[in-house]
This record gives sequence, structure tokens and C-alpha cells, in this order.
Amino acid sequence: MPFVAEDPNFRQRVRESFDRQTFLQTLGAVLTLVEPGRCEVELASRDDLCQQHGYLHAGVTTTIADVAAGYAAFSLMPADSSVLTVELKINLLAPAEGDRLCARAHVEKAGKTLTVVRADVVAVTGGREQQVASMLATMFCLRGRPEGSAPGA
Amino acid sequence: MPFVAEDPNFRQRVRESFDRQTFLQTLGAVLTLVEPGRCEVELASRDDLCQQHGYLHAGVTTTIADVAAGYAAFSLMPADSSVLTVELKINLLAPAEGDRLCARAHVEKAGKTLTVVRADVVAVTGGREQQVASMLATMFCLRGRPEGSAPGA
Amino acid sequence: MPFVAEDPNFRQRVRESFDRQTFLQTLGAVLTLVEPGRCEVELASRDDLCQQHGYLHAGVTTTIADVAAGYAAFSLMPADSSVLTVELKINLLAPAEGDRLCARAHVEKAGKTLTVVRADVVAVTGGREQQVASMLATMFCLRGRPEGSAPGA
Amino acid sequence: MPFVAEDPNFRQRVRESFDRQTFLQTLGAVLTLVEPGRCEVELASRDDLCQQHGYLHAGVTTTIADVAAGYAAFSLMPADSSVLTVELKINLLAPAEGDRLCARAHVEKAGKTLTVVRADVVAVTGGREQQVASMLATMFCLRGRPEGSAPGA
Repeated sequence: MPFVAEDPNFRQRVRESFDRQTFLQTLGAVLTLVEPGRCEVELASRDDLCQQHGYLHAGVTTTIADVAAGYAAFSLMPADSSVLTVELKINLLAPAEGDRLCARAHVEKAGKTLTVVRADVVAVTGGREQQVASMLATMFCLRGRPEGSAPGA
Repeated sequence: MPFVAEDPNFRQRVRESFDRQTFLQTLGAVLTLVEPGRCEVELASRDDLCQQHGYLHAGVTTTIADVAAGYAAFSLMPADSSVLTVELKINLLAPAEGDRLCARAHVEKAGKTLTVVRADVVAVTGGREQQVASMLATMFCLRGRPEGSAPGA
Repeated sequence: MPFVAEDPNFRQRVRESFDRQTFLQTLGAVLTLVEPGRCEVELASRDDLCQQHGYLHAGVTTTIADVAAGYAAFSLMPADSSVLTVELKINLLAPAEGDRLCARAHVEKAGKTLTVVRADVVAVTGGREQQVASMLATMFCLRGRPEGSAPGA
Repeated sequence: MPFVAEDPNFRQRVRESFDRQTFLQTLGAVLTLVEPGRCEVELASRDDLCQQHGYLHAGVTTTIADVAAGYAAFSLMPADSSVLTVELKINLLAPAEGDRLCARAHVEKAGKTLTVVRADVVAVTGGREQQVASMLATMFCLRGRPEGSAPGA
């Protein structure tokens, strides 16, 4: 059941919103895929993003999963809208270690106001992948408020 | 129903673990309170920690809530243990803006293996507080593996 | 921070909705308190509501927590609205055994469209209480659709 | 990545545990599939299982999703163990109406102590299916305590 984006400009809209997120620049996160109802975000391992055992921090894993989930939802929203995370639930399945993390999100149900999204995060070492997290989240479509229309809009 | 820490050295143990988390230094997060079954973590607003609308990123809010929740649980665990986040669920209630964020966690149920923790995050502007997030999380006690015993332990 | 119900008829509205839920009659659930932003639901233990170890089923515990949470939210909604559960997250803290279960919910954040609610479930044996579950849930306000206006509305 | 059940008797073990759940008999739930790491549970619509709008109750949907998730996990556990639900998170995607509900669960990560499971619930009307819920849950393996070994064990 492929999704269709009602706004043909969805890729640019997602990318511009992504680029406004200063925290993603701080983390070095990169937007690697945007399709209708799908999004992927990657991040290279860095020594300053770790928890107490030397693995990538759960907050880092959660951030890229949340961002991928938000933009998977946002890709299907109308041009004059903004996306907000209502809530997210994430299970951490294995230590996040490797060359990089990749968060892959896809919409499960797109509604007028709420969109439910699943996301997985895998750690990639060489060509090998291991799933490190599984997320189920709810996104909100704020209509009539295009992103970037005003600071803090 | 106050909790009692079985390890009298719990404050130092929490602080040393906190100080090993490089990501918390990257964020500028500070450990402001550790009591048996309770923990608070604060973070000053910074322009490089924001999402697309200029608010503090949900990933930042989630990180300090997770850290406070983890150490609230860890305060009650035995000396030779490590703490891991099994899963967390967070509702974002309001935009995270203000001078700083404060995450406050308390244990709801401490078990031998699993500990359930609630955490709230408030945004503080001057002397005024607004709740911006509510979390419910599950922590795992890894026994016989003192934190810091080995890299990546 | 006490809540104020905008609809003075909220108690009757909640009770009439509760009474339309045939599943609650099947379970023997009773509405024991409705205040602005708060609700309590009780249920007596019964042999036909158990899981494989003889405790009350997690599905029963979840049901009364969800219902209490939904009506805590609904108490604050306008007269011409319906309430829907968007999602719920529940931690099961202890076996649900005792004379009866009591679910107590209170609103954390009431918004125009979404309301976030916490609920605890306690098992009551004689005069003694033990918490058996902790819930964090999101409720949706469907405006212009008064409950009971039409079958399946 | 198919799972292998270490206990060759897993199907009988799951079925015997299912049959001890009196609440499932009350609901008319039926175990329709047990494979290593997978489980399906079905339930026919009934007028006494509804919420206020005449749809099947979220508590019913959640119950069969939880049961399917628990037994998907239990299928991989050793013979002398019991399964407990640690926590579950469920998003309700559409009204639960139709001839019957079917919950389909599969294990995402099986650990020694904890197993993470996803479950979907679909409503079936004639030959048509609609997804009505999505769950992400954590199950606990209680070792050395075979199910049915003692009342309330």
C-alpha cells in the first residue's frame, strides 16, 4: 500500500526543515532518503556522542529515529503545515556501536491530524547491520502553519 | 514511601557514571540532584540544540529525561551493577523554550531486575516553570558488571 | 493546578457514555469518581477475568485504566464532543490480585485536540492497596460529534 | 531471520497456557497460529464487547494483541519458564469493527530475560482486512517457574 504525497514539493520541504534543525548539525546527522511516507537519517559514530559504557547514547539513537519518523509523516502532509512529535516509544534492543547509525521510518497510518509511524535504527559496521532500536510514534499535523513561516511558529 | 539505597556510596557511583557520558558534556547537561530513587538533570538552552522552529529539540528533552530516569533507578541498584534503558515512552506537552530545562525523575517500582521510573521535564524561564514532557520508562539492572569496570562493559 | 470543566454537565455526560460501553458491563466495571480532569473506575475480582497464573488479566487492568484516562480527559471536553484513545502505554508493576482493582486517572495536559493523561491501577485487599500498573496515554477530542448522537458516530 | 524454538514442545506449552486464561474464554478468543517467534489470536465480534460508539473496545483489542505478543515471546522461551508482560504500548489506528479481530505478533528481539515483540491487530469483514492497532511490547522470561506448576506461581 504505497503512499502518495499530496504536495509534489515534499522532498524540498522536508530537506529545508531538516536543515533548520541546529541540533542535527551538532550531531552530524544526515538526511539520506525521503519518499512518500518514508524517511532515513544517518549519523557517523563520534566519541562525543557516547554514554557511560562507550556506546552511542540512547538519546542520539532516539533523536535520529524521531527525526526520521517526523519527516516520514511530514512527507505526506500538505504544503502549509508543520509537524510536531506528540509522543514516541522506543525499545533499545542492543548496544549502539559501529561505524554509523541509520534510522529508517515508515508511516503506518496517515490521518488528517495524526500520523502513526514506525522506525527502526540499525548500527552499521562495514557492510553488516544490527538492529539497535525499535520505535512507535505519533506525529501531529499543524495546518495553516508552514514551517519556517516565523521563528518559533 | 521513601526508598532506601542499599549501596551507601550511590551518589558517587551515579556521579562517576554521569561524568563518563561524553554526550552529556556535549549537551552541557548537569547532574543537580541524586537521592535514593530520585534524580534531577539540568541543561541550559543553546542555539545549537534546537529543532526547526527554534525550540530545544525533542531529542535533547528525551535525553535528559532518560538520564535522570536511569540514575534514579541506578541509585537503588547494588554497587556491582550497571543500568541500561530497556525502553522509554515520552509525551511532548509544550514547546521546550526558556532559560533551561530540568528533568526530574522518581522510581515508581524498583524490582530486582527491572525498575519503572517516571520523569517530568520542565522549562524554566526566570522563576517560572512549564512542564514540557512526561516520561514513563523501564530500566534494567545488569548485576555483576560494575560501571566503568571495562570499556564497553 | 485544578482544572475547570467548561461543560457544567460533564458528570452526566461521562456517566451516560460509560453506561453505553457494553464491555464494561461484561467486566462489572463501575464508575466511582468523576471530577474535572480526574476519574476513577473500579472492578471486583472474578474468576472469569484471569490470566494463566490466576491473577486478573493485564487486559482487564489496561481496560479500566484506559477508561478512567479517557473520561478524565472527556470531563474537560466541550459538550458536543467525543473522546477517542490515540495510544496508551502501560507498565505492569505487580500481579493484579486482591478483592478489587481501582484505576485512578488525572489529566497532565489538556489541549484543544489532544489530552495527555496518567493513570495508576491499584489492587485493594481489605484496606490495603498495592499499585499494579502505571499508564501514560493520549486522548483525542472529536469536536462536533456528541457521543450517543448516532450509532457508531 | 527465522527463529528456532529451543523447546520442541513449544506449541503444546503455549496452548496449555492459553487455555488456562479464563478471561480469554470470557472474550471468546481463539489461538489460531503458533510458530517460533510468531503467534496469532482471533476473536469474533460480539455486542457485549463494545465501547460507547458500538465498536469493539480498545481493551479487547489490546488484550488479544498482548496475548499474541506474549505467546510469540513464550514460544522461544525454555520449557521451565513463565512469561510476563513488562509493558506494552499500543496505537489505535481505526475503529475496531467487522466480523472479527485478528492479532498477529512477531518477535523483534529475543533476549535471555527480555523479549521485544511487535503486534498488529486487523479487523476482518468478509475477505477484507483493515489494520486497527499497532503494538510494541516487552515480555519477561521468568526462569525455573514452569507455567501451571502452581496456582498463582
